[in-house]
Amino acid sequence: MSLCNRQWLLARHPRGLLQADDLQYREVEINDGETLPPGHIRVRNRVFLCAPTMRNWMEPAGTGLYPTIALGAPVMAPTGAEVIGSTDPRYPVGAKVSLIGSWQDYQTVDTGVRPPQRLSDDLPIADAIGKFGLNSTTAYFGLTRVGQPRAGETLVVSGAAGSTGSVAAQIGKILGCRVIGIAGGAEKCRWLTDEIGLDGAIDYRAGDLGGKLIELAPDGIDIFFDNVGGEILEAAINHMARLGRIIICGQIAGYNRSEDRFPQIDTMRLVYGSVRMQGFLMRDYIADVPHALAELRAWERNGQLELALDVRSGFEQLPQVFNDLFEGRNRGTLLVANT
Amino acid sequence: MSLCNRQWLLARHPRGLLQADDLQYREVEINDGETLPPGHIRVRNRVFLCAPTMRNWMEPAGTGLYPTIALGAPVMAPTGAEVIGSTDPRYPVGAKVSLIGSWQDYQTVDTGVRPPQRLSDDLPIADAIGKFGLNSTTAYFGLTRVGQPRAGETLVVSGAAGSTGSVAAQIGKILGCRVIGIAGGAEKCRWLTDEIGLDGAIDYRAGDLGGKLIELAPDGIDIFFDNVGGEILEAAINHMARLGRIIICGQIAGYNRSEDRFPQIDTMRLVYGSVRMQGFLMRDYIADVPHALAELRAWERNGQLELALDVRSGFEQLPQVFNDLFEGRNRGTLLVANT
Repeated sequence: MSLCNRQWLLARHPRGLLQADDLQYREVEINDGETLPPGHIRVRNRVFLCAPTMRNWMEPAGTGLYPTIALGAPVMAPTGAEVIGSTDPRYPVGAKVSLIGSWQDYQTVDTGVRPPQRLSDDLPIADAIGKFGLNSTTAYFGLTRVGQPRAGETLVVSGAAGSTGSVAAQIGKILGCRVIGIAGGAEKCRWLTDEIGLDGAIDYRAGDLGGKLIELAPDGIDIFFDNVGGEILEAAINHMARLGRIIICGQIAGYNRSEDRFPQIDTMRLVYGSVRMQGFLMRDYIADVPHALAELRAWERNGQLELALDVRSGFEQLPQVFNDLFEGRNRGTLLVANT
Repeated sequence: MSLCNRQWLLARHPRGLLQADDLQYREVEINDGETLPPGHIRVRNRVFLCAPTMRNWMEPAGTGLYPTIALGAPVMAPTGAEVIGSTDPRYPVGAKVSLIGSWQDYQTVDTGVRPPQRLSDDLPIADAIGKFGLNSTTAYFGLTRVGQPRAGETLVVSGAAGSTGSVAAQIGKILGCRVIGIAGGAEKCRWLTDEIGLDGAIDYRAGDLGGKLIELAPDGIDIFFDNVGGEILEAAINHMARLGRIIICGQIAGYNRSEDRFPQIDTMRLVYGSVRMQGFLMRDYIADVPHALAELRAWERNGQLELALDVRSGFEQLPQVFNDLFEGRNRGTLLVANT
């Protein structure tokens, strides 16, 4: 059977937000009856996760540390998908998987190169990807493994109304920290204090971030969970307590080059404060994902953890929805459902 | 008995290297017969350690994390001293001690506020302060506890011909690392490879530091022990291996504001490389100092560790000798003997 495969291809490396000419929309016919080589699956992408770090993948190849999307290739993205063809018994037809897929309806995956993760059958794909996916496990491992919080410590989270930040902040509360969230705008700040129960919130757009950090964290910041970078990271470093930990999770301020420089780090504060600043990837802890998911699901069931989803629909909207991330027009995890 | 106490006082906050007007030389008479309050000692400073971080102490009070020298007070400095009067039985007259003292011949110390450390009687004071003092233990704890090296890893040390750097580099060799030193000038680099046996050396003054790091550490830097900061730190970050560790020990490039900005850190490299960057102070590990000293002394006795001393004499020379640190005119630990 012939299928129409819609694709968004990277046409050129963007500067700043995505522009119309950065991507190319294409429809190609694919043959569903085509035989798969051994160890392959064909999937239908059902949910696209819009994650800020994808913006890095669109940059020209450089360091070798980042994945890079080739010009002319579909935009790489975390997806939730349904297996529609398979020569790998681990992934039968009908199974639900999460993978680093791409912005197209259908794709063929070599399961030996990068094994997709099976999703549990008891959750809708959108929940598995949006609530218990990459963003939540990243928050979990970043805070617990890198941050190593102790009850009573002061945790500050930037991008606290975002997908990863809101989970990190709430886990901090569950573990007994005093938690201050930094977000853009009064409405998000109200949500942080009134809805998810943080101890304080700072609207960075209102200015004087440094002064507000002194006010809300008078004994210094024990743990800074950073999703933003740039000037927010610079300000937080000036208020770290001794033996503080800075978890570098994401640096959205730098991704679309809205700040065209790297953060300037007062490294002597790291010395005199014996401060640790550490980057990490979720996959550093891949073996512990089942444990993390069990804990996250239990917290959500108990009502201790609110996992906000912002689900949009329409494959055609992907570029615009992706830009919304960088303009702060989402609350919680941003997904595009592909029906 | 009346004694003449020579002092160097901080007259104003320096900019860049010390200038004549930054310090004031004074001689005051003190009465050696004056009764000490309980829990005090009077000492004669015999050795002054010139440590780069003292330059930070001369800055205006700011963060509260740094010790600060008040204007009009003697310049604070690590010293080795002899007890000449005591009302504390832990420190009898004739005992040798190390303390955070100051640039003067004599001083009275409240042993309850900041207990001096007793030095072992079997070492000359200059060796206790210069070979087995703050700099060597700092190198020891920084490399072993913060860096956590494994045999076969690639260690890069900046300021590798300096007091702390040369010890860190040699401990790296003892622990089985491949060690590359960064230093200023061909002569220091020859010393690093030919005398202390490093696997490679880079003269940062000769340019193209990034290219040389790629050449000498083709699989990336597992551990970067940084005494310098600035552009050297920026270059090293671009070559860190996955799961690398950056030990921020000192940042001499920034101390006298020869670089008037903080290092710009590509924090996304920390994320994608899962790199840890950590500051520390020797006193974080104070309980383990006896163990560290035993190990350092055994390594020196075995001929595995060369501890270079650069001993100058003349109290009057202190400011000029201190400046030599920042112009790289020392090889190993810089001391001023006060006879």
